[in-house]
Amino acid sequence: MSADRFDGLREEVRRNIPSGIDITSIDLEGPLVVIYTKDFDKFSENSNITKVLATQLKKRFEIRPDPKTLGATDEVEEKIRARIPEEAGVTGMFFDYDTGVVTVEAVNPGSIIGKGGQQLNDMKKETGWNVQAVRSPPIPSKTVKEVRGYIRYARDERAEILKRIGRRIARPTYDNGEQYVRMTALGGFRQVGRSATLLMTKESKILIDCGLDPSSDATPYFSVPEIQPLSDLDAVVITHAHMDHCGLLPALFKYGYDGPVYCTPPTRDLMALLQLDSIKLIYGEGKKIPFDAKNVRDEVLHVIPIGYEKTTDISPDVRLTFYNAGHILGSSIAHFNIGNGFHNVAFTGDTKFEKTWLFNQACNKFIRLESIVVESTYGGRNDMQPSRMDASKEMFDLLKQAADSNGKVLIPVFAVGRSQEVMLVIEELMRSGRLPKMPVYLDGMIWEATAIHTAYPEYLNTSLKTQIFQQNENPFLSPIFKRVETAEMREEICHSPDPCIVLATSGMMTGGPVMEYFKEWCDDPNTWLLFVGYQSENSIGRTIQRGRKDISLNDRGKVINLDIKMNIETVDGFSGHSDRKQLMKYISMLEPKPSKIVVGHGEDRKCVDFASSLYQKYRIETKAPLNLETIRLK
Amino acid sequence: MSADRFDGLREEVRRNIPSGIDITSIDLEGPLVVIYTKDFDKFSENSNITKVLATQLKKRFEIRPDPKTLGATDEVEEKIRARIPEEAGVTGMFFDYDTGVVTVEAVNPGSIIGKGGQQLNDMKKETGWNVQAVRSPPIPSKTVKEVRGYIRYARDERAEILKRIGRRIARPTYDNGEQYVRMTALGGFRQVGRSATLLMTKESKILIDCGLDPSSDATPYFSVPEIQPLSDLDAVVITHAHMDHCGLLPALFKYGYDGPVYCTPPTRDLMALLQLDSIKLIYGEGKKIPFDAKNVRDEVLHVIPIGYEKTTDISPDVRLTFYNAGHILGSSIAHFNIGNGFHNVAFTGDTKFEKTWLFNQACNKFIRLESIVVESTYGGRNDMQPSRMDASKEMFDLLKQAADSNGKVLIPVFAVGRSQEVMLVIEELMRSGRLPKMPVYLDGMIWEATAIHTAYPEYLNTSLKTQIFQQNENPFLSPIFKRVETAEMREEICHSPDPCIVLATSGMMTGGPVMEYFKEWCDDPNTWLLFVGYQSENSIGRTIQRGRKDISLNDRGKVINLDIKMNIETVDGFSGHSDRKQLMKYISMLEPKPSKIVVGHGEDRKCVDFASSLYQKYRIETKAPLNLETIRLK
Repeated sequence: MSADRFDGLREEVRRNIPSGIDITSIDLEGPLVVIYTKDFDKFSENSNITKVLATQLKKRFEIRPDPKTLGATDEVEEKIRARIPEEAGVTGMFFDYDTGVVTVEAVNPGSIIGKGGQQLNDMKKETGWNVQAVRSPPIPSKTVKEVRGYIRYARDERAEILKRIGRRIARPTYDNGEQYVRMTALGGFRQVGRSATLLMTKESKILIDCGLDPSSDATPYFSVPEIQPLSDLDAVVITHAHMDHCGLLPALFKYGYDGPVYCTPPTRDLMALLQLDSIKLIYGEGKKIPFDAKNVRDEVLHVIPIGYEKTTDISPDVRLTFYNAGHILGSSIAHFNIGNGFHNVAFTGDTKFEKTWLFNQACNKFIRLESIVVESTYGGRNDMQPSRMDASKEMFDLLKQAADSNGKVLIPVFAVGRSQEVMLVIEELMRSGRLPKMPVYLDGMIWEATAIHTAYPEYLNTSLKTQIFQQNENPFLSPIFKRVETAEMREEICHSPDPCIVLATSGMMTGGPVMEYFKEWCDDPNTWLLFVGYQSENSIGRTIQRGRKDISLNDRGKVINLDIKMNIETVDGFSGHSDRKQLMKYISMLEPKPSKIVVGHGEDRKCVDFASSLYQKYRIETKAPLNLETIRLK
Repeated sequence: MSADRFDGLREEVRRNIPSGIDITSIDLEGPLVVIYTKDFDKFSENSNITKVLATQLKKRFEIRPDPKTLGATDEVEEKIRARIPEEAGVTGMFFDYDTGVVTVEAVNPGSIIGKGGQQLNDMKKETGWNVQAVRSPPIPSKTVKEVRGYIRYARDERAEILKRIGRRIARPTYDNGEQYVRMTALGGFRQVGRSATLLMTKESKILIDCGLDPSSDATPYFSVPEIQPLSDLDAVVITHAHMDHCGLLPALFKYGYDGPVYCTPPTRDLMALLQLDSIKLIYGEGKKIPFDAKNVRDEVLHVIPIGYEKTTDISPDVRLTFYNAGHILGSSIAHFNIGNGFHNVAFTGDTKFEKTWLFNQACNKFIRLESIVVESTYGGRNDMQPSRMDASKEMFDLLKQAADSNGKVLIPVFAVGRSQEVMLVIEELMRSGRLPKMPVYLDGMIWEATAIHTAYPEYLNTSLKTQIFQQNENPFLSPIFKRVETAEMREEICHSPDPCIVLATSGMMTGGPVMEYFKEWCDDPNTWLLFVGYQSENSIGRTIQRGRKDISLNDRGKVINLDIKMNIETVDGFSGHSDRKQLMKYISMLEPKPSKIVVGHGEDRKCVDFASSLYQKYRIETKAPLNLETIRLK
């Protein structure tokens, strides 16, 4: 949008707003068109105005009170508190002069909102502020608090960033020249790990995911000319918070990227948590750190969080919509509408096409779709997994066996996703009395990750939401769960003779606290090691899982040799990934049917096999590119 | 090669040179290591020294007399002339102080060289100059004269350029990081026209060909980030001088490229000719000109000409060798040895795998080869062509028919390649008396292109070389050939009632003088239009060839409608391209057998069909990428 086009937009906005509403200014902020008004209360009364604007002009709008009309915070706080009933349980109140939003954090935000939002509207009218009520996380999350705190702290800088991004999205387009859509595989193709794909159109360059390979620390091919200079990128889109999809993102900011990062709100918080944790982890291993905490803060400041199914302009010719991917909290399928319908492509990220204990199944209905890029972690011919029910049954059998012999169980897990599912299963087994109550220790960020889950209950599956909101039974709050907070406590658990269950990171045993328990317990035949997640080729987890009995480990610079007598078990079916059958079903039930499928995120022959099977079965053109290859989608 | 590495090289050179030879300096100039010496005559006596250096150090060396030892040109010229016999027929003598070369141009250079080069050596010894004898073109070529003249004129600038290129080739390499070899299709894939491929390694970026689509003026996709900025390119390699392979090269210099262009010597001259001609042509059509004559001069100054089978470093990790492609004069297969044997890939350009009237068949034996990129112009299942003998027979029949009815024949030809072949056939028919003698008019650069052919007889096929050098019978010098030099002369030929044959450009009737004859003759049933070359999809030539009888043409801004009564004939078998059978045979006889074949330079379904047939028959992995796709060779 050139200056002229932006002026045109302003006029159209004014034309679509009823007379009698005083508009102070209209501006761009990231992908939003922001309207400042002296009559904020009139918008509150007639929320239809914004809907009409969005439909008519195909933009996202945000209405804000003119800062000049905003009353002083202490007075406003008093007025708001006067109207809020005791049972709301207010835990904090935050004022943002730039947006005119006052966020009231409460245990029971419903009683602030009132029936049909009436009370909220009254408060808006009285104070002139845009009053918003949010749920206080039932388990306090340090990450959520810090992320939100930092964004508030650096709000001037963020305002500048958003303004710049807004201008860039609205830049003039090249009107001539042939349109095309291509993608370059920069990492995570014919392999699992370091996911990164560059989407290129005539106008735009967008990076989808920016991961590390956790088993080798390999990074995507960011030295190639396609993605250089990083400052030419329009946007980075993160499908979910696992390190193989976002682990290198802070380094982009270190090396010159200064643009927006689009992801869901839980993805922002989870990835900040995991990235900061990885710094500690890498530091502990004495390896070279690709970024520091400052880069993570930079990243957080550049995130533009977008919920599911909200279409957003992210460049002059690309619109992004996130859909539920069912893989982990906030995980999303990124759908791109390019060139106003010229081409539509979805990147599934990692998906689960089955309702799990945590999430609804991945979305596979889109308004338009011509190409789709899918994962194939379990895309091999024989990659069948038990259902969630069967997996839980098997886990029960193994935990029962351990409990019967007063043994200890160690479960290596990703902090995010598998941990919480396993927690739900164990909590249910102990609550129903099928398994004796014993402590379930959570070590290495799992507690914090769980806290983030409780901060975003709207991203959980339908039954869990009902259980939490309507039955007021939040399984994550069960007293069986104990947080391992200090090295001393870990030491104590390691040496205690009492039976217990430990969930600890990292999930592929490439480091982290799980290794401390493992080193201590591995020569004890009355202990169990339970794998519940994917073990990538070459990871230590995979080696142990395959049955190797002598393992050499690097222990703070020294090599130690371990003789494994521990019971090694694998419970399949807890994966956040679709198995072969679910992958095939996902494609067969996809609406609309795409004309091209690109397969990635799987070991070499699995990618090839899955691509070939899809072609054989559905006669849709498939590609399984190598890293560093570019294919044309249109 | 860093400064250190260059110092090391210098030392090695000195170590390999017999003591008693005084070396003044050693420097880099383009891909050459140049050795200046006060004892130039000692090198002349012992040519073995350079061979040993080249074998030992895997570099190309040039020995030059120290400029301080060079005598004044007038004295030297006198001394040389005194030693040259009358029958040599000297036509010019050119001195270059920078290289110490004096070039003696003569009708009979053999009598300057003397038996075993003795006389030349004596002259070198006496004068201190590096005396070289070259053949004066039997038909004076304006292009050859101007190109050589310009390079002499701008020799200071060229010396600077070569020095810069030399330093760049010898730059330090990144010692760590994974090696890879990839190619991006920037034009000419799944289509014929605008050939351009980017070869990328960990260290280098090389552009192979830089063509235009003559039927649509479309250009390669040079706006994509892979090739930007142009100044990052290490080299441009041109396989041959047709406009669909080099037509946009001068524009690269307009838009910031400042590096070397590697091609054979005849390719340099032919492309300058065709590019300068295209400026006139485009100007005449009132279209936008993508470059001007200054850019062509820039290009010429940056050309580093390399003959067949001389291996040359063109970047820190890439060595280039040209091999005969059999397509047109100087046409070559570009073979790249990457990373000191890490991978070997050959780009065939356009090839003819049959000995033609002009050239030997394309080379298909290489020392090493893992990937090959081949053309598929006639790669379709039914693209069979008659042999050269059958084609000549058919041409005879048609020309005889026309001659018998005193008709006129118009043959649209590419200035370069087909013209000269058709000339050879007609000359033979008239010389042998099978066809009555009549004027054969050459219009639109054909004369000049023929002159360039006579300047490089060593690039012609074995029998033609024998005929020219040993039997002293140069068919191009036959008096039947008449050059059309003015518009008046063309007008006269157009309106003359006498039978004649006209060879005129452009070959696909997309413009040029051929259109003048065509417009004049097309409603006369006693005229013949003979197609002998490839007519690309959408060209006017293809439309007429397909039998359309009413044609609308843009004639200097006005639209004119033509009603075709002319006899439209096609003589297949004169193509400079291999037909389907020859393409298959080329691959089946390829040594060594590659593990990957990439198919380009063919219409969409021909590329796909040929790739699939190759795989079916030889079980070698094949790819037929789309433009804008990148594939990994290794």
